[in-house]
Amino acid sequence: MAKIGKLTILLLISSEEEEKELLKKISNLGYKICQGKAGTMDSKELIAAIETTAKREGIFHAGCYREEHAVYHAALNSLRGFCRGEIGIGNFLRTIGVKFVVLKGPLDTAQSDLGEWVSVGIYGMVGAPIKGFEHEAIGLEINHF
Amino acid sequence: MAKIGKLTILLLISSEEEEKELLKKISNLGYKICQGKAGTMDSKELIAAIETTAKREGIFHAGCYREEHAVYHAALNSLRGFCRGEIGIGNFLRTIGVKFVVLKGPLDTAQSDLGEWVSVGIYGMVGAPIKGFEHEAIGLEINHF
Amino acid sequence: MAKIGKLTILLLISSEEEEKELLKKISNLGYKICQGKAGTMDSKELIAAIETTAKREGIFHAGCYREEHAVYHAALNSLRGFCRGEIGIGNFLRTIGVKFVVLKGPLDTAQSDLGEWVSVGIYGMVGAPIKGFEHEAIGLEINHF
Amino acid sequence: MAKIGKLTILLLISSEEEEKELLKKISNLGYKICQGKAGTMDSKELIAAIETTAKREGIFHAGCYREEHAVYHAALNSLRGFCRGEIGIGNFLRTIGVKFVVLKGPLDTAQSDLGEWVSVGIYGMVGAPIKGFEHEAIGLEINHF
Amino acid sequence: MAKIGKLTILLLISSEEEEKELLKKISNLGYKICQGKAGTMDSKELIAAIETTAKREGIFHAGCYREEHAVYHAALNSLRGFCRGEIGIGNFLRTIGVKFVVLKGPLDTAQSDLGEWVSVGIYGMVGAPIKGFEHEAIGLEINHF
Amino acid sequence: MAKIGKLTILLLISSEEEEKELLKKISNLGYKICQGKAGTMDSKELIAAIETTAKREGIFHAGCYREEHAVYHAALNSLRGFCRGEIGIGNFLRTIGVKFVVLKGPLDTAQSDLGEWVSVGIYGMVGAPIKGFEHEAIGLEINHF
Repeated sequence: MAKIGKLTILLLISSEEEEKELLKKISNLGYKICQGKAGTMDSKELIAAIETTAKREGIFHAGCYREEHAVYHAALNSLRGFCRGEIGIGNFLRTIGVKFVVLKGPLDTAQSDLGEWVSVGIYGMVGAPIKGFEHEAIGLEINHF
Repeated sequence: MAKIGKLTILLLISSEEEEKELLKKISNLGYKICQGKAGTMDSKELIAAIETTAKREGIFHAGCYREEHAVYHAALNSLRGFCRGEIGIGNFLRTIGVKFVVLKGPLDTAQSDLGEWVSVGIYGMVGAPIKGFEHEAIGLEINHF
Repeated sequence: MAKIGKLTILLLISSEEEEKELLKKISNLGYKICQGKAGTMDSKELIAAIETTAKREGIFHAGCYREEHAVYHAALNSLRGFCRGEIGIGNFLRTIGVKFVVLKGPLDTAQSDLGEWVSVGIYGMVGAPIKGFEHEAIGLEINHF
Repeated sequence: MAKIGKLTILLLISSEEEEKELLKKISNLGYKICQGKAGTMDSKELIAAIETTAKREGIFHAGCYREEHAVYHAALNSLRGFCRGEIGIGNFLRTIGVKFVVLKGPLDTAQSDLGEWVSVGIYGMVGAPIKGFEHEAIGLEINHF
Repeated sequence: MAKIGKLTILLLISSEEEEKELLKKISNLGYKICQGKAGTMDSKELIAAIETTAKREGIFHAGCYREEHAVYHAALNSLRGFCRGEIGIGNFLRTIGVKFVVLKGPLDTAQSDLGEWVSVGIYGMVGAPIKGFEHEAIGLEINHF
Repeated sequence: MAKIGKLTILLLISSEEEEKELLKKISNLGYKICQGKAGTMDSKELIAAIETTAKREGIFHAGCYREEHAVYHAALNSLRGFCRGEIGIGNFLRTIGVKFVVLKGPLDTAQSDLGEWVSVGIYGMVGAPIKGFEHEAIGLEINHF
C-alpha cells in the first residue's frame, strides 16, 4: 500500500544502493517508471530532458498528444514547486543539478478504481554558479493521465 | 553524512514506526527538530501553526525577530512550493491536510563550517472539499538562520 | 470542422438569440456542454459554480476524482487567464460578473483520434465595486480529460 | 451597440471570409484597428510584433510615450492571460502560433462619454515543439488610452 | 527639475517637518497630491484607502472610470512591488503599517510634452503580527493618466 | 536614529552632491555600504552586478555561502519589487538603467539588539528600447544576514 507521490519522493532521494530495490518494488506495484539527471541553467532543458526520457521509456506514447500533455504540465508544475516562486534558473543567476523521476500508475495502490495518474518529481541542488554555494530543493506534481 | 533537506523530507514521509528512530538519528546529527499537523483551507493558519510550533519547541527564540524572520520566509516559500504556483488554498476551493517539519542545524553534516540553516517542509494531501478527491503535494525551503 | 476553444469562446460571447442555435450545433459536433453565470468578489465561489454546474450537467461523473481533477485545473487556469496575473477578485477590490462555459469532447472535430478534452471559458465584466466602472475580460483553459 | 473586448475577440476568431466584413463594421463603429500574426518561442518577439504593427498602423503616435505605454501594458497583460500563469514560451519549452488584434476607441459604443481605450487580444495555438501537439489559448487586456 | 517617481518617494519617506515644505514644492511643480496612512492585514482595505483618498482629494473625478482605472492599476502594482511577489498580507500572516502617496502631473518636470501621469507609492513596515517583528518595504507604480 | 530601508532609499535617489555626505553619515551609523550602476535587458546581469560589487566591497565574505545567500535573496526580491510582477526585463521587451545600493548593518540604529541585516535597493528607469520611453521604478528587500 503506497501512494504515487511518496514513491516518487522515495526514488528521488534514494541512494544508489536503495534505488535498485526500490525500482523493483515500485514496478511490482504496477507503475511505469523513468528517471534521469540534469545539470543546467536553462529551464527548457530540464523540461526537455524529462519529456524525452518519459517518451523513450514508454511513459507516454510518442504520437499521443493527450498523454504528452499530462506529462508536460506535471513537469512544468513540478519545476514551479522546485523554484518556489516563478520558474527561473539561469535568468535568476542560479544553476541546478537534479535527479528527476516520472511514475505512471495508480494514485494510491490501495484504491484500484481511480484510474491512471502521472507524477513528476525533481530533487537536487540549486544555487549560485559558485562551487558549493547551493542547497537542496524539491518539486512534485501529480496529474491525471 | 546527511543534508538538511533530505532529512526534512525523510521525516515528512516517514511512517509512525520509522519516525521515532528517525527523530533520534536527526537529533544526534545535531539538529533541532519540530513537527506538527494541520488541516485547513486558510494559508495563514498553516503558517501560524508552523511558527507557533517552532517557537514553542525552541527552533527560534520567542523574542528574536531575526530568527523568526528566517523561519517565516522558509515557511512561506515551502508553502509556495507546495501550492505549485501562487499561494492559495481555500480561495482556490482547495483544502489541505499536511504534516510539517522544521529542522535547524547544518546545511550538510559533512561540512561543519557553513553555519546554521533552517529547513521547513510540508507534505500531505491537497484537493477538493470532497472526501477522497485529493492527491499528494510537497514543499521545501531552506534558509540561512 | 471546429476547435474546442473557438466553440467555447463563441458560446461565451453569443447573444441570447445566437445561443440556442449554437448550443445545438456544438452538441451535434459531439460535445457535452454546460454553462452558467456568476457575480462575485470571491474566487472560490466562481470555481464552485463551475464545478457544481459541470457535475450536475454530467460533464464529469460525481464520484470520479480523475474527471473532477481535469475540470478543476481547467477552471483554475481559466480564472488565472481572466485575472491576467495572480488570481484575485475581492482581495484586489474587484468584482466580476461573468458567464462561464464548459465543453467536453474532441480537441478538434476534424481529428477524431486525439481523445477527450475539456475546455473552461470565462467571459464578462471585471471592475471596481462602483456601477459602470468595469471592462471585459476573458479566460480559457483546455485540459486533457 | 458593441463592446471593445467582444469586438476584439470576434476579430481574433473570425475566418478569412468573416474578417473583411467585420473589419468594416468595427471601423464604422469608430475604432482604429490593426492585426497581425506571429509564430515564435520568444515572448519579446510577440510583444515587439504587436507594438510595431500598432505604431505602423497609427494606433499610437510613434513619438508619444504615453500612448505607447498604454499599448505596451495591454499587450503584456494580454500575453499573461494567454500564458495562464507567468509569461513564458520558449523557456517553458512551448511554441506559439497566434493572431493578434489591437483596437482603439470607445469601451462601449453605447456610451460615448468614457473616453478612449485600447484592447489587445491574442488568440491561437500553444504547445510543444512537436507538430500537432498544441491547443488553443486566448488573452485579452483592455487599458485606458 | 524633478521626476514624478522621485518626488513620490521623497514624500513617502519624509519626516513630518520635511513634509510641509515638500508638499509646497511638489505642488508648485504642478502636481496634484494626496496622501494617507493605513494599517491593515487586508489588501483590499489599502487599495480602498488609496482610491477613496485620491477621489476625495480630486486626483481623479469621482464619475470618471478612465481616470479611476489609471489610479487603480497604479495602486495594485505599487502594492505588488511592496509585497515583493504575489499580493498578500493577512493571508500570509503579515500585517502592514504604511503611508501612501499619490501624485498626478508630469512624468518629468523638465519635459512638458509627455502628458499627464499618475504615481502611487507605498512605504512602511511589514511583518509578523508581533510587536517589533517587522521591517520596511516600498512599492511604486507609475501609470499614464 | 535611522532605519536600514530608508537609508538605502535615500542613497538610491541622492544626487551626486548629496551622495558623498550621505555615504559618510550612513557609514558613521555603522553600516557597510556598496553601490553601483547597471544598464541591461538581462535580469541575471543585474543580479551578478549586485553580487560582484557586494563581494568586492566586503559586504559578504567571498567564501561564505551563508552570507552570499542572504544577499542573493535580497537582490532577487528587490528586483521582483522593481519589476512589479514576475521578474522580467528583456524577455518582456523592456530595458533598465538603474543604480543599486547594498547596506549591511542594524535594522534600526535605535535598536542595537536586533542583529545584522542586509538591504538591497534598486532604483532607476525602466522602459521600451526607445530613447525616452521610460519611467522610474524602485525595488527594496531587507533580509536577515
